[in-house]
Amino acid sequence: MLLENVRSPQDLRDLKAEELDDLAAQIRETLVSTVSKRGGHLASNLGVVELTLALHRVFDFSADRLIFDVGHQSYVHKLLTGRYWRFSSLRTFGGISGFPKRSESPFDAFETGHASTAISAALGMARARDLQGQTHSVVAVVGDGSLTGGLCYEALNDAGSAGTRLIVILNDNEMSIAPNVGALSAHLTDLRVSKGWNSTKRKVRSGLQRIPLIGKPVYRFIHLSKSYLKSLVVDEGFFSSLGFRYFGPVDGHDRAKMEKTFMRARELDGPCVIHVLTQKGHGYDKAEQQPERFHGIAPFYVETGNVREVSDLPPFGTVMAEELAGLAAEDDRVVAVTAAMAQGTGLAAFGEKYPDRLFDVGIAEEHAVTMSAGMAAGGLRPYAAIYASFFQRSFDQFVHDVAMQRLPAVFLLDRAGLVGEDGATHHGVFDLAQTLPVPGVTVLAPRDLAELRLMIRWSIRTEGPAVIRYGRKPCDMSERFPVKRFVPGKWEILLPGGDCCLLAVGSMVREAVSVHDLLEEQGIRAAVVNCSTVKPMDETVLRLFSDRPVFTMEEHVLTGGFGSAVTQALLEAELPPPVISFGLPDTFVQHGGRGQLLRFLGLMPEQMTRRIAAALKTAGGESIGR
Amino acid sequence: MLLENVRSPQDLRDLKAEELDDLAAQIRETLVSTVSKRGGHLASNLGVVELTLALHRVFDFSADRLIFDVGHQSYVHKLLTGRYWRFSSLRTFGGISGFPKRSESPFDAFETGHASTAISAALGMARARDLQGQTHSVVAVVGDGSLTGGLCYEALNDAGSAGTRLIVILNDNEMSIAPNVGALSAHLTDLRVSKGWNSTKRKVRSGLQRIPLIGKPVYRFIHLSKSYLKSLVVDEGFFSSLGFRYFGPVDGHDRAKMEKTFMRARELDGPCVIHVLTQKGHGYDKAEQQPERFHGIAPFYVETGNVREVSDLPPFGTVMAEELAGLAAEDDRVVAVTAAMAQGTGLAAFGEKYPDRLFDVGIAEEHAVTMSAGMAAGGLRPYAAIYASFFQRSFDQFVHDVAMQRLPAVFLLDRAGLVGEDGATHHGVFDLAQTLPVPGVTVLAPRDLAELRLMIRWSIRTEGPAVIRYGRKPCDMSERFPVKRFVPGKWEILLPGGDCCLLAVGSMVREAVSVHDLLEEQGIRAAVVNCSTVKPMDETVLRLFSDRPVFTMEEHVLTGGFGSAVTQALLEAELPPPVISFGLPDTFVQHGGRGQLLRFLGLMPEQMTRRIAAALKTAGGESIGR
Repeated sequence: MLLENVRSPQDLRDLKAEELDDLAAQIRETLVSTVSKRGGHLASNLGVVELTLALHRVFDFSADRLIFDVGHQSYVHKLLTGRYWRFSSLRTFGGISGFPKRSESPFDAFETGHASTAISAALGMARARDLQGQTHSVVAVVGDGSLTGGLCYEALNDAGSAGTRLIVILNDNEMSIAPNVGALSAHLTDLRVSKGWNSTKRKVRSGLQRIPLIGKPVYRFIHLSKSYLKSLVVDEGFFSSLGFRYFGPVDGHDRAKMEKTFMRARELDGPCVIHVLTQKGHGYDKAEQQPERFHGIAPFYVETGNVREVSDLPPFGTVMAEELAGLAAEDDRVVAVTAAMAQGTGLAAFGEKYPDRLFDVGIAEEHAVTMSAGMAAGGLRPYAAIYASFFQRSFDQFVHDVAMQRLPAVFLLDRAGLVGEDGATHHGVFDLAQTLPVPGVTVLAPRDLAELRLMIRWSIRTEGPAVIRYGRKPCDMSERFPVKRFVPGKWEILLPGGDCCLLAVGSMVREAVSVHDLLEEQGIRAAVVNCSTVKPMDETVLRLFSDRPVFTMEEHVLTGGFGSAVTQALLEAELPPPVISFGLPDTFVQHGGRGQLLRFLGLMPEQMTRRIAAALKTAGGESIGR
Repeated sequence: MLLENVRSPQDLRDLKAEELDDLAAQIRETLVSTVSKRGGHLASNLGVVELTLALHRVFDFSADRLIFDVGHQSYVHKLLTGRYWRFSSLRTFGGISGFPKRSESPFDAFETGHASTAISAALGMARARDLQGQTHSVVAVVGDGSLTGGLCYEALNDAGSAGTRLIVILNDNEMSIAPNVGALSAHLTDLRVSKGWNSTKRKVRSGLQRIPLIGKPVYRFIHLSKSYLKSLVVDEGFFSSLGFRYFGPVDGHDRAKMEKTFMRARELDGPCVIHVLTQKGHGYDKAEQQPERFHGIAPFYVETGNVREVSDLPPFGTVMAEELAGLAAEDDRVVAVTAAMAQGTGLAAFGEKYPDRLFDVGIAEEHAVTMSAGMAAGGLRPYAAIYASFFQRSFDQFVHDVAMQRLPAVFLLDRAGLVGEDGATHHGVFDLAQTLPVPGVTVLAPRDLAELRLMIRWSIRTEGPAVIRYGRKPCDMSERFPVKRFVPGKWEILLPGGDCCLLAVGSMVREAVSVHDLLEEQGIRAAVVNCSTVKPMDETVLRLFSDRPVFTMEEHVLTGGFGSAVTQALLEAELPPPVISFGLPDTFVQHGGRGQLLRFLGLMPEQMTRRIAAALKTAGGESIGR
């Protein structure tokens, strides 16, 4: 097999066209086969096979620099840069990451994970190059969706002004298509005939049928004529007004044509954008047909495209959206907001019921939050669902626009805690540190799906900002612990126990119950408290259990997290602090199965049980009033 | 005086043109006189007198909504909405705020302070209006500088797609002018003759001489012809490609003309931009001549324009820039980055020495941080100076782009702690909460100017990300405590004392020394430690003083702050936690003199002394090992 013999991109140089075609097929085979076993981002990688080959044939990324925006489309790059033999470990604990990692290869110039960072980073590298008298090329590969992020605009704006050499590949896959036909045709002006047209006719024809607006109206710079395919036109005004030279559109599956364009671009003196049209899922029929399903997918059967393991519980997001739809039925003020995460957060289902009340603002978390503040100030009750790690983008907007005005906006932080295989960039482990210091905010974390329902129902009555965080893995504890009620600020004592008290938040409540059971086998009776409100704390319950050693449990960094807040509250009440706070240490946690990661961090029930039992032994049964 | 009788904007309706001119003069007089006593934002307010009058005459902001981006240009609006009689209390403790406040007036529809939020908020309000079947207008007044922020772009992009009624006033004052003539003329395409030309001839002529690029290349949409003034042209392509209708440019000092334009805009079905040209400082010669100095100014003498009180110490930023220039002379890798704060952070002086090594990216903190990460990855040593409260904007970029890759970028957080008169939006009191939970980061806070010098000198040797926070008020303790050395991770024992230990950070070190002196008068000997490294903690010193009661002091919120980190470190080392952590409580602190605010918060030395003495008395001289 050709692919086996590609030890470095150097090996691509001498291959003939047919060999490269074979190689592309082998790459696709490897992608489908590996992702079918490991899960991951399939459709986007199938789309960039020829693009990545062309990049590595034209540029020498041992000297040139290549940055993948978001980075989930870097699998092909990994296969071509000496990682073929380890590729089967994709996304596993200790294995190849699903994103670029500088520790994996010198060909990974910059690490990504969140969207819209690549042009900023590339500009930084280009400036570094210029100041150091170097001459290599810097290339950023940016998807169409990423361009809706303000960070991209800030970088384009700055780069255009700087005028330095910088190549932006706009990887425009036909997935991100806006449904708004009218908006496009209303803006058909300043048209210019695209020179690259002939070779991309087929592709663009399908594009025309689908109206390739690429998600948000910024893409109106791609003006398509209404009449004839021959008169396909591209208005490059958007980029050229920002000081960029524009090339394209180029067929992203025509390697040779892309290579020619890249060679031209390499010789330019200033910044340029090369607009490449690719097809998500290209070459695997299931992914071509359902590119959105195969964007990020769990392990699946190649023949059918069906996912291997189906959870019998719905995700938290599904339940959230159901409840929210229920609220919306009763209260006209309820609206939902998301930042290009309608599917992932479950809000798409809300949008099916209330299309006029779901606002997807694109990859623009900052705007999502400030816009929500405006909605709340205007009398609505906005619910913005954002992944916890992406919510880091709106820290200032949350503080400055929402909290400072005490606006009743609710933020639903999905994927809080360890997300598992996506790794460090995607773990939602800083959101408490980000929200707890903010005055006047209510911060909640449900122990399971049923409690989330109650929290959503309560939230319509909040008079200020509220945050509800929940993890990727659904949980139903209702058989043993039926959810009775939810009162903000009141914790739920799940299990009594006079020897010690386990204060657990969110996903760790279930683990605390396991710890309780394990301790019981040793004759230790541990109370278990579901601390469903992280802010404000339930001081009554804190006092109630202050006569016995307290342990806290959270899926969040310890600094600035739940344990830290409990400690502060206990000390302010002149009560003894927790004996051990279980949580994430002061390091970035990498990728792997959630269970493996918890074990690595010492957060599995039996591990916590051992430490608790040992601590109680040391304390000799007395109150540990250190 | 006319102005005295304007109780509400309603009173403006029946005034004649000459009366309105008189009123404008009276407003300017009031602005100059009040700001000369209270300090504040003068030039921008002098520039928007006619604009604000026109807005209030055309719209009825008891039903319509008006949002000022940044908000420091809302003084005129305040004078016209029932706050004339209280206006002399501007920026004082308990007085009128320098920014819009919903608690002050129903005419303040949305609170601002940081840039680029207004269009997002306005869009939220417009959507709220539409869903509730209302019909009022929503107007956002946005300065040219704010448009460089990505949040504005995200909002324009979304608003253009939504197509709802929304009026954006682009307040283009001639201050923000890019020096890059070449870049403009290279992009003279798609020109259209501006219809509003005749009335703005004089203004635009001076604009032409100065090349009104408005700071960043996004403003290239204002394409000026090379040849004749008559052919002045405006390419509205940027806004129209985003779905906005464009009006302008309009003379921002021609009230009548603006009123006509606003009336037209009010009738539109979709979103529009009205491009208004104003002159910063208009009507006060000193401010016209030096608009940048009069942007935000301390109390000054009206006749001379000179500031009333001149500090005998340079600001922290000046010293930082000096040291950084010293580093730059020795090390070619040193570069400086800022986000439209070159003057405020002191970096302008660096730029005078090293124009090619200072990068001002516009109001774009996110990009400043990610671009710095790219620079560091490219082999440079970037120093990004950003106000602490604006650094909140780059939380995710700091975590995701800098810290996760352990890149050696240094962040210089100016205005950390209470900034005083600018109030809640500008206090830098969340930066520790934002940086301490991030793995692998070094966080420093100098006790005075001399220590800052040593920290800067050390920082070139850092192998990972470093943050140095310092306040607005300079401090020199070198007479009593000469700075000897700085070693990261090592605290400095300034004063011995066996009765208790005061652990203080940054600006609070000086206060701790005062507390020490006051305690000494009572016969209590307090050790004083300068905790110059907030992360990592100096565990040796922590242990050394663990035999006596510990108190922490910081100018930061307590949750997630220094005291919290000390508590965590002490408990992990199985040592007793602090007896009292002094810092900011869980509320937003409003505006006022720094001393007044500290007193209000119980953080003046005599207040802290009383509490410490009382706590020691309660403890009865024994170690407080609770």
